[in-house]
Amino acid sequence: MKKKPLILVTNDDGITAPGIRTLIKVMNTIGEVVVVAPDSPQSGMGHAITVDATLHCRKEHIDNGPQIEYSTSGTPADCIKLARHEILDRVPDLCVSGINHGSNSSINVIYSGTMSAAIEAGIEGIPAIGFSLLDYNYDANFSPSEPFIKTITLNVLNNGLPKGVVLNVNIPNLPKKAIKGIKVCRQAKANWVEKFDKRQNPQGKDYYWLTGKFVNLDKGEDTDEWALKQGYISVVPVQFDMTAHHFIQQLNSWSLNEE
Amino acid sequence: MKKKPLILVTNDDGITAPGIRTLIKVMNTIGEVVVVAPDSPQSGMGHAITVDATLHCRKEHIDNGPQIEYSTSGTPADCIKLARHEILDRVPDLCVSGINHGSNSSINVIYSGTMSAAIEAGIEGIPAIGFSLLDYNYDANFSPSEPFIKTITLNVLNNGLPKGVVLNVNIPNLPKKAIKGIKVCRQAKANWVEKFDKRQNPQGKDYYWLTGKFVNLDKGEDTDEWALKQGYISVVPVQFDMTAHHFIQQLNSWSLNEE
Repeated sequence: MKKKPLILVTNDDGITAPGIRTLIKVMNTIGEVVVVAPDSPQSGMGHAITVDATLHCRKEHIDNGPQIEYSTSGTPADCIKLARHEILDRVPDLCVSGINHGSNSSINVIYSGTMSAAIEAGIEGIPAIGFSLLDYNYDANFSPSEPFIKTITLNVLNNGLPKGVVLNVNIPNLPKKAIKGIKVCRQAKANWVEKFDKRQNPQGKDYYWLTGKFVNLDKGEDTDEWALKQGYISVVPVQFDMTAHHFIQQLNSWSLNEE
Repeated sequence: MKKKPLILVTNDDGITAPGIRTLIKVMNTIGEVVVVAPDSPQSGMGHAITVDATLHCRKEHIDNGPQIEYSTSGTPADCIKLARHEILDRVPDLCVSGINHGSNSSINVIYSGTMSAAIEAGIEGIPAIGFSLLDYNYDANFSPSEPFIKTITLNVLNNGLPKGVVLNVNIPNLPKKAIKGIKVCRQAKANWVEKFDKRQNPQGKDYYWLTGKFVNLDKGEDTDEWALKQGYISVVPVQFDMTAHHFIQQLNSWSLNEE
């Protein structure tokens, strides 16, 4: 690549979260960086977009890096749309989202604001990667991730991604030496078994907190869950054509058009 | 089926929206109905879940139908989780979501609260269908949809759905006689081209409204967009394994583990 690539950075934990600050640092070693990220945490927002409220956008100076930064009042998907259509004057060569504070492996991809930003970029035709570290702490140690994130990013810039595919990268919470390498995986067929913590407010009215336990019954050794357990970084190619193509033929045999 | 099936009904337009009231009416002719739906509109929420706020849930009596109803302060996905793990004492035989006021065809499945509820039910192992009418008006005419919704619902109850698959049904805004029938389709590769309407508030500060134009460059005659344009009801089987399986082999040829 002759010119420095233009890299759009976002996340769902908010523009000041340590995860995105690490990601910006790594991206500054690769390209020209523009950050457009939520002004406050947006975790669990899934692929929400703001259709019934106004959006605000503000230029920010958070550290002394060479990147240009904007915070917005929107969701991660909103950030991508705003960046692409209002802030940037050319299409970015890459979009990276994260580093999320916590896992987005397996079914979590569905609930993930981090991945919704990557998917939104993919829909816009921008090669995109979501990065997540398996540590929910605000003060998680992101530095072991840095060289791996750089390797994956350079691979995407060099090889490109097919239309309709983005990458979901999850990083185990391990010291650098203990990370065994990078594994291409499929999304494990796992899910959350919810439990609601039912409480009463001071006025005696019931309310709930959502809690749950992650249950993985998928025994495959080609899944993201397996790779992460073994100490690998998982890379799952993710598509946003959600059609269950394998079921179309059988569905056509149903009696949908009989009186 | 000997016993009346237990049907869970939800939506994203809120429990009093005409779309869900029509869906409840149709489901009352088929089974025992429990409604757990948001107390206010949640459109564009994607697959959001409430992890950082409390959830409230209230019993409701909205009309004289035989159904049992609850409204919640949560998103459509929250409603399914609450219904399954707090409200219902057995697993429902079916979950239906909608009827959405507006299209959830093509890429809209990604942004759709209606479909997030159906997908959440699918993740929980409950056969599920999302219904949407291509009319954004609050006072849209839902009655032409009724017999088709009944047919599709009975087909799902009789045939079941494979694990990991739910249905996305979109209904053209046409009189009953003009609807040509029901077509099984794939999700069209279409997207929104966003345009932000930039304004200034009375204090002179910029803000934005998200607007956009839907662009379909997919010329396939097996897509939901094509079917709807021809006057058919589209049925797309939707999966929540988002792995781009077709790209795994090529991804494995990348230099991800070279120093």
